[in-house]
Amino acid sequence: MTTGNAMHELVRQLYPITRSITGNGVRETLQHIAEHIPVELHEVATGTNVFDWTVPKEWNIADAYIKNEQGERIVDFKKSNLHVVSYSVPVKQMMSLSELRPHLFSLPEYPDRIPYRTSYYSESWGFCLRHEDLVKLPEGTYEVCIDSKLSDGSLTYGEYVLQGETEEEILISSHICHPSLANDNLSGIVLATFLAKALQLNPHRKYTYRFLFIPGTIGSIAWLATHQEHVKKIMGGLVLTGVGDSGLLHYKKSRMGNSRMDAAATAALQESGLPHGVLDFSPFGYDERQYCSPGFNLPVGSLMRTPHGTYAEYHTSADNIDFVSPKSLEEGLALCQRIFAIFEGDVVYRNQFPFCEPQLGKRGLYEAMGQVPDEARQLQLAMLWVLNLSDGEHSLLSIAQRSGMEFSLIRKAANLLVEHAIIL
Amino acid sequence: MTTGNAMHELVRQLYPITRSITGNGVRETLQHIAEHIPVELHEVATGTNVFDWTVPKEWNIADAYIKNEQGERIVDFKKSNLHVVSYSVPVKQMMSLSELRPHLFSLPEYPDRIPYRTSYYSESWGFCLRHEDLVKLPEGTYEVCIDSKLSDGSLTYGEYVLQGETEEEILISSHICHPSLANDNLSGIVLATFLAKALQLNPHRKYTYRFLFIPGTIGSIAWLATHQEHVKKIMGGLVLTGVGDSGLLHYKKSRMGNSRMDAAATAALQESGLPHGVLDFSPFGYDERQYCSPGFNLPVGSLMRTPHGTYAEYHTSADNIDFVSPKSLEEGLALCQRIFAIFEGDVVYRNQFPFCEPQLGKRGLYEAMGQVPDEARQLQLAMLWVLNLSDGEHSLLSIAQRSGMEFSLIRKAANLLVEHAIIL
Amino acid sequence: MTTGNAMHELVRQLYPITRSITGNGVRETLQHIAEHIPVELHEVATGTNVFDWTVPKEWNIADAYIKNEQGERIVDFKKSNLHVVSYSVPVKQMMSLSELRPHLFSLPEYPDRIPYRTSYYSESWGFCLRHEDLVKLPEGTYEVCIDSKLSDGSLTYGEYVLQGETEEEILISSHICHPSLANDNLSGIVLATFLAKALQLNPHRKYTYRFLFIPGTIGSIAWLATHQEHVKKIMGGLVLTGVGDSGLLHYKKSRMGNSRMDAAATAALQESGLPHGVLDFSPFGYDERQYCSPGFNLPVGSLMRTPHGTYAEYHTSADNIDFVSPKSLEEGLALCQRIFAIFEGDVVYRNQFPFCEPQLGKRGLYEAMGQVPDEARQLQLAMLWVLNLSDGEHSLLSIAQRSGMEFSLIRKAANLLVEHAIIL
Repeated sequence: MTTGNAMHELVRQLYPITRSITGNGVRETLQHIAEHIPVELHEVATGTNVFDWTVPKEWNIADAYIKNEQGERIVDFKKSNLHVVSYSVPVKQMMSLSELRPHLFSLPEYPDRIPYRTSYYSESWGFCLRHEDLVKLPEGTYEVCIDSKLSDGSLTYGEYVLQGETEEEILISSHICHPSLANDNLSGIVLATFLAKALQLNPHRKYTYRFLFIPGTIGSIAWLATHQEHVKKIMGGLVLTGVGDSGLLHYKKSRMGNSRMDAAATAALQESGLPHGVLDFSPFGYDERQYCSPGFNLPVGSLMRTPHGTYAEYHTSADNIDFVSPKSLEEGLALCQRIFAIFEGDVVYRNQFPFCEPQLGKRGLYEAMGQVPDEARQLQLAMLWVLNLSDGEHSLLSIAQRSGMEFSLIRKAANLLVEHAIIL
Repeated sequence: MTTGNAMHELVRQLYPITRSITGNGVRETLQHIAEHIPVELHEVATGTNVFDWTVPKEWNIADAYIKNEQGERIVDFKKSNLHVVSYSVPVKQMMSLSELRPHLFSLPEYPDRIPYRTSYYSESWGFCLRHEDLVKLPEGTYEVCIDSKLSDGSLTYGEYVLQGETEEEILISSHICHPSLANDNLSGIVLATFLAKALQLNPHRKYTYRFLFIPGTIGSIAWLATHQEHVKKIMGGLVLTGVGDSGLLHYKKSRMGNSRMDAAATAALQESGLPHGVLDFSPFGYDERQYCSPGFNLPVGSLMRTPHGTYAEYHTSADNIDFVSPKSLEEGLALCQRIFAIFEGDVVYRNQFPFCEPQLGKRGLYEAMGQVPDEARQLQLAMLWVLNLSDGEHSLLSIAQRSGMEFSLIRKAANLLVEHAIIL
Repeated sequence: MTTGNAMHELVRQLYPITRSITGNGVRETLQHIAEHIPVELHEVATGTNVFDWTVPKEWNIADAYIKNEQGERIVDFKKSNLHVVSYSVPVKQMMSLSELRPHLFSLPEYPDRIPYRTSYYSESWGFCLRHEDLVKLPEGTYEVCIDSKLSDGSLTYGEYVLQGETEEEILISSHICHPSLANDNLSGIVLATFLAKALQLNPHRKYTYRFLFIPGTIGSIAWLATHQEHVKKIMGGLVLTGVGDSGLLHYKKSRMGNSRMDAAATAALQESGLPHGVLDFSPFGYDERQYCSPGFNLPVGSLMRTPHGTYAEYHTSADNIDFVSPKSLEEGLALCQRIFAIFEGDVVYRNQFPFCEPQLGKRGLYEAMGQVPDEARQLQLAMLWVLNLSDGEHSLLSIAQRSGMEFSLIRKAANLLVEHAIIL
């Protein structure tokens, strides 16, 4: 099985689970992830104050339906967990269509799709259904049941720390609060999981990688509130969202706009040869809103394909397993590996022979005479660039950018020069 | 009567008056303005040294003409004050055409226009006339009379200070030294007058607005020389010239090029939706030459329509009442109000909840569920931008620019957040 | 004879001499130059350590050939010194074609050209010949002779210092190590020589000009190693290479990229009206590699026509006398003179009347009335620019750039203002 297929298979496993910002669906999801990486579960109790917010009650749901006068389930949670507005309070009541109507949500412009709705912070209830079904509802009396529970409990998140050679950290964050929606954000969850698996295999990681699987907004706020000092260690990071659809890859910059993370991600996209876009930071989207709030201003960007909210399947039942592809997931993984290879390799060296060029020829690093094959010649040019700019101010990535050469070639040239103790 | 028509009516009233850099024409003009705003007259005595310059003698003129042998006034100051070179010394003499000829000025390329000429700083005299009349003058003896007086007196300027909540000042300057020329600069004088009237109606002005009605060059030099310490209070300003013709609006930047004044004027032009141009500073033009001299370097830009010297009517009798329109004048007024609304509103706030987002929903500032109307959604996005960038370094105008949103929307969002004490 | 023809004549004289990085060919070349300018010869002994390098043995050659079985010289050094790989060790031997073959170099893609090859730092020998001749060599026994000598001696370079009013220096460097190649780099040598002649004629040179005629790489390294403190005096400089062909003029910036040298050269090219290119620094090319190594980082750029290595004649016998033209040489000289006229004239003045404009009219610098001829008007505008920006921070070149006016006009305006002690 290709990596892409393995990733898609995990999307498929996680798809049916009923997730929300709290509750057992999150825990069940994390247990699946734990089969791949040793993720730890953390619980933050209901009522905990986290900055301006309070951790809400825990929500769980067993069943929900609307029955018509014939006793038929015309809307059935068991068929799709999208049918219930997330965080709906319990209901068990007979009511007329006109009483029921304000609690029904549909998409007139996409009559065959179930919308995705939530009501986290105001107590309410509702059902989402296909517009084509809504318009066919006859007058009459309906049995409405939401067998949910809102009670003191906790908010759950998963964390996996892959220790590196230093305490400096890379943060990888994906939100884990959406029910049966594949691109948003099972794709991000799965990409994070497989990125962790891949990075484990690299024995020389300068950076410690911290993977967070958190409910959107309240999860990152809770984590930040409980790690206020810790965040100083974060040198870069990515929020992974919507990386499974077939659209162009997009990197959205951190609020800083010129962080090393932004440079590495932009360079990786360029070097990947894939068509792509680079977006300036904006304070909408996902948990980058919190990581990049002015008090934190972390160097954390976001990776996605089609930006959220700009595709018709977004937050509807059409964001299903078929909407994400093994190919897209695997491309995203390869890109992340390229980004962090650049980030890890982006070192500032100092040329030990700053006055004139060192004599590369006597070290076998320079062809003395005759035709030099093109590849060797490119490597020589890369060495000259590294020598010329390794003045303690230019990192290898900035050297790659100024020279117009690929980072990997600059990195290779630097390795040769380090071996000969010409740069250190 | 529309505001534009009222403005045009004032142009019409001021048009016939014989103005120069000194003399009763300036005083008469200021008396007309005093019917609209309480402008004060200031006098600077002849001979006063102002930096490298000296206030010249006061010039007044009662009559001037050239009579032919039949005793007919073939050039008559009473028909147009442009006929006499401004600051001409008195003359009363019979002379042949060949003696007279060096004192006659015309525009061969526009034979039906009277040119406008001055000779402030070298004692001389002359007449301006239509080229079509000049070429028809027969040989013979002419009676030449300029009944002018050059004597110790004073330079007159008008000043109106509209006190604001702070001592920080906005300077509005227009030159008042041109005789019967409508666009240059009755349009600027009238725009300044009506802007003062409009700003008076706003009860909350942070800034104090100082309106100067001064003779060009020597007037601004005299004012600056007598207010050298005072100018530290000037936070921004506009020189208003040539704002009544039908050309595109142009803003010419201050010497600084990146002052808050430049940002506010540029943003106002963009948001106005009017076609327009933004010009870099150059050391030619009007009194911005003095305000932006290197020792002062004030954040004072210039507002105009067609830049001076680039239209054929410039400094000729064709720059008459019909050359300026109520519509252009009124558009200029609206633009100035927009500029200073932005300037006044361009505040640096500090987000009181810098760590993660504050919970807008619990304050009724954020829709919890369901469709948000587009207008409300834009306001929410604007609030997120203001929150994200109100770190004590970004002003609302810089937030508008970075977000691509209109300043008025950003300002509205900021007002909401101030009301809830989220930003201060 | 035009200057261009005189320059071309010197190329013709120097062309036949067998130069290398050491040896009598360099000395003979410098003796020719000494007929034009009083260049001094310096010798650096074999074995001298210069940074990471060591001055090599001195190489001289009397004769070299390959004879066929009939005793005919089928490759003959006396016909072209390119036939011998430079720095070839002595050989005198009979050998079969298959033994000889690894020592023969040709250009299959240009069968009628002799390539130029060197083997400075690895002891070896070889012959370069036309590919069309190489392929016709029959099997058989060949007599191979290289009558060369590699022995302790010295590296020779020429230096000419043209003293200016200050100790601040301009460095002009050209490499003198190539045998019969006209564009690379007899053109550079000749341009440097004629530039020195021309600058001598100017009695007011602020800067001291130092002309170096050095073997490439090892020569500049040797000079820098023996002048480490001295280089602090270098305010700007040019490496002159390949300035005789018919391609576009190119200026390659110093490593700094924004040095006064870069600004002056770029402005001179723009004002020349010639089509041209400006290249960013790269650490390949000629001795700018050493001058711009990170420890020195001198403000030294390079002037050339077609960049080295990008024309087919490069490093072949086709780079002959006809490949360079009097016109190209003379244009290069004129450009260099323009560059240093700008560099010399690029002064920072301070306006002595920084508050408002000084009254130019009373000094006869401003027309009071009437039409101003266009040329006088441009000069007035230039004076206003100089006045406005002479605040101690802007040099005349930066004023020329901001105003969009030619440097020569700005310089002329500044001269007038200096005469009147308005700027100092």
